[in-house]
Amino acid sequence: MNFLEERILKDGVVKEGNVLKVDSFLNHQMDIELFDKMGEEFKRRFAEKPVNKILTIEASGIGIACMAARHFRVPVIFAKKTQSINLDGDMYVAEVESFTHKCKNNVIVSKKFLNEEDQVLIIDDFLANGCALQGMIQITQMAGATVSGIGIAIEKGFQSGGRIIRNLGFQLESLAIVESMDVKSGAIKFREQS
Amino acid sequence: MNFLEERILKDGVVKEGNVLKVDSFLNHQMDIELFDKMGEEFKRRFAEKPVNKILTIEASGIGIACMAARHFRVPVIFAKKTQSINLDGDMYVAEVESFTHKCKNNVIVSKKFLNEEDQVLIIDDFLANGCALQGMIQITQMAGATVSGIGIAIEKGFQSGGRIIRNLGFQLESLAIVESMDVKSGAIKFREQS
Repeated sequence: MNFLEERILKDGVVKEGNVLKVDSFLNHQMDIELFDKMGEEFKRRFAEKPVNKILTIEASGIGIACMAARHFRVPVIFAKKTQSINLDGDMYVAEVESFTHKCKNNVIVSKKFLNEEDQVLIIDDFLANGCALQGMIQITQMAGATVSGIGIAIEKGFQSGGRIIRNLGFQLESLAIVESMDVKSGAIKFREQS
Repeated sequence: MNFLEERILKDGVVKEGNVLKVDSFLNHQMDIELFDKMGEEFKRRFAEKPVNKILTIEASGIGIACMAARHFRVPVIFAKKTQSINLDGDMYVAEVESFTHKCKNNVIVSKKFLNEEDQVLIIDDFLANGCALQGMIQITQMAGATVSGIGIAIEKGFQSGGRIIRNLGFQLESLAIVESMDVKSGAIKFREQS
């Protein structure tokens, strides 16, 4: 079991509706030392891949992406979820549907910050159905840039997002893949990773 | 002139309506080395203050707060701007009005993560009228916690937020305070800081 899986067992809480609450260390309160370890591990897993930019999406991907960026020594771009009046000029826009929030969002990145020379590592905190991730892949490809890899903190292995993305040939590395959760006992099973 | 003021002169763009665009390094694409320097500078300015938690608000405060947290060795909490279905249980809620987005938002922090023993450094990327900041101060005080200080990347010194907060007796440290901007020439004047 790796350090993130151990932390999930220690502080994660299983809730009704296949919700895994990790808000005490990942997506509300954030453990920066843990994030730094995660960044180091992403760097190890993508050591062979060229990466000159990290792309994530607001809000809870940003902390992990920033700490990972220290290890890659590259800038981070965070995609915005709604049109903002401060985002002028030309933008890449992908429409995605959020499973968690039951609504459609536009994923938006300014055209200034992605182009065909970019080799992009996409980072996010959660992968379930993968809608936000699909939006980021779409935007990277709209820009003519290359998706060098995808790094996720926690993947819900019992939902389809991860399988689809791997079937499409992307190198998707999830630091913890939850195979099943039991709301009664609070038990969490992880997929074995080599 | 400090490193952030220099960077603003180099890459910031003055737009109509007193908008300062810094999206190439601060709030869309993020320069992590710059953020690390900012974190180091916040640590220097708040060296005498007890800090056991950093509080920020989604989305663009998160990166700066995380990099600062490395220097303080404390966790970061990011306040959420809207009700999320994953945020259950008891929450502190402050209603604030956003100047930039012309709408009201609820600033929300779970009660689990702030209590009367906490000594909080509030960090955000921008301070103009200070609505988001006022929401974070309100929430810290609702929790019975102490505001140890407030660290801002860029303050618009010609708007009222900073003056009000300093008048209330808080130690507010803005790494760059813009006194005036000229949209025609693109000139930016900073307030002298000791």
